[in-house]
Amino acid sequence: AICRTDARMSLTGHRDLCLPRIPGHEICGLEERTGSPFVVWPGQVCGVCDQCLSGRENLCEHMRIIGFHRDGGFAELLAVPKSCLIPIPQAIPFHVACLAEPIACTRNALELAGLSDGKHVLIFGAGPVGLMMSLTATSMGADVHLVECDRLKLDRSREFREHIQVQSSTSCPKSGFDVAINAAPSMDAFREGISSLKPGALFCLFSGITGESPLPSSLINEIHYRQLRIVGAYGCKREHMTQAVRLISDHTELMELLVEELIGLEKSPDALRKILSDRVMRYVVQL
Amino acid sequence: AICRTDARMSLTGHRDLCLPRIPGHEICGLEERTGSPFVVWPGQVCGVCDQCLSGRENLCEHMRIIGFHRDGGFAELLAVPKSCLIPIPQAIPFHVACLAEPIACTRNALELAGLSDGKHVLIFGAGPVGLMMSLTATSMGADVHLVECDRLKLDRSREFREHIQVQSSTSCPKSGFDVAINAAPSMDAFREGISSLKPGALFCLFSGITGESPLPSSLINEIHYRQLRIVGAYGCKREHMTQAVRLISDHTELMELLVEELIGLEKSPDALRKILSDRVMRYVVQL
Repeated sequence: AICRTDARMSLTGHRDLCLPRIPGHEICGLEERTGSPFVVWPGQVCGVCDQCLSGRENLCEHMRIIGFHRDGGFAELLAVPKSCLIPIPQAIPFHVACLAEPIACTRNALELAGLSDGKHVLIFGAGPVGLMMSLTATSMGADVHLVECDRLKLDRSREFREHIQVQSSTSCPKSGFDVAINAAPSMDAFREGISSLKPGALFCLFSGITGESPLPSSLINEIHYRQLRIVGAYGCKREHMTQAVRLISDHTELMELLVEELIGLEKSPDALRKILSDRVMRYVVQL
Repeated sequence: AICRTDARMSLTGHRDLCLPRIPGHEICGLEERTGSPFVVWPGQVCGVCDQCLSGRENLCEHMRIIGFHRDGGFAELLAVPKSCLIPIPQAIPFHVACLAEPIACTRNALELAGLSDGKHVLIFGAGPVGLMMSLTATSMGADVHLVECDRLKLDRSREFREHIQVQSSTSCPKSGFDVAINAAPSMDAFREGISSLKPGALFCLFSGITGESPLPSSLINEIHYRQLRIVGAYGCKREHMTQAVRLISDHTELMELLVEELIGLEKSPDALRKILSDRVMRYVVQL
């Protein structure tokens, strides 16, 4: 599948991208020798650095990400380390299974956010990632409120939202949340999220912030005075991929709603442009 | 004792200050009836709100802080709830014992920062609070590096620093810290601290930020990509006061170095002005 990061890095590059590169990090395929179906965890890690040894392999000091540091899924044949292969049940169609990687990233974020049963969670963005975040959060027992200022995106996501029974609104509720998390790159989501937290609560920076809009020092003082916590999240660990496959297996039909269209590779430049419009679900390239 | 917050709020007010008010929240005294010596935990809490019940009494929804919401220590006689009294050994002189409150605040912050044995900690500011933070951190087993850009303050703090054997410099080391914490109100300390952290590491916002200098979005993206954590700290809990009294009891002579001068109440306006110059240790008012 093609994500927003693929689309953005085709225009502006990315801190982890080494050129020339075949992109693609949301990958599903058959092992050539056995014909068994797998999704690919895109991390290749050393296993021996301090980060790996302390259980944060996604921060490995020698990390090589498939589709960034080495060639990725926009290819007919792909060589990946065996340690990156996560087996999947035959019943999950490939165009849904490839969403295991973004689901795994939402799981990584929500674990870092200390999510647990009954927590009140505010999620910004009803694009495919915000919806996957909502699904993961509800599967972890959270009580989710989704904010999406774009009515068109809210309308398009209705069936998914109703199925998992999350509350939604176009503006941000004022207060009372244990966790807020952004699946949208605007500074406004960060600012509003911080203000909506209970004292001692947590904002998870799942999305980077685009644009140059700075954060006023008054908001940093909110963090100080109200003992708030900000936690960054980036990528996922192998175990999150396994958990993601289980979640997809339980919600295969629902996940179909997140697929915009199956396309050939020749249509991918057009898909990249549409993804940047921010109003489409996931395009999946079928080779 | 008079702290920088007392000095600043005499000029500009404070979010928790209700006027008219007798200030003073670093307090030591004798109980009128028994003559027993006590330090005062300045928090008066409800004990039944969600924050109190989840062990974060310093965030109590009905918090009344002595010296802010009710009258404080710049008075000959002071009525405080019995729950605010922490007994102290006779051997600690009052002008040192009153520093239990700021020590307790450093303990609260370093616990929120998850400090433990062998962690590499970067502390910004070699004023009295930065020095107390360094003492608390070393007592918790941390390996401390203190940054102070003002050579005069670095010189004045030499004896204290040498006694607790912390490394010091006028500029910020580039990387490798598990925890960074600010006992200085400049945005630069926050910016430099974030850059000096290992991936997955933590910045504790102990001090609020003065001035209007905003935080660029690129630094927020550092938090995202490197899975950093930002944790706010404000005030302290009753148990931290007890721990602080023990620490002072073990280092009474050392703590004397943090007392600039014992003054009468009539000299306090002059002391407030000097505190704002940021180049003095703690003034203690003796009534």
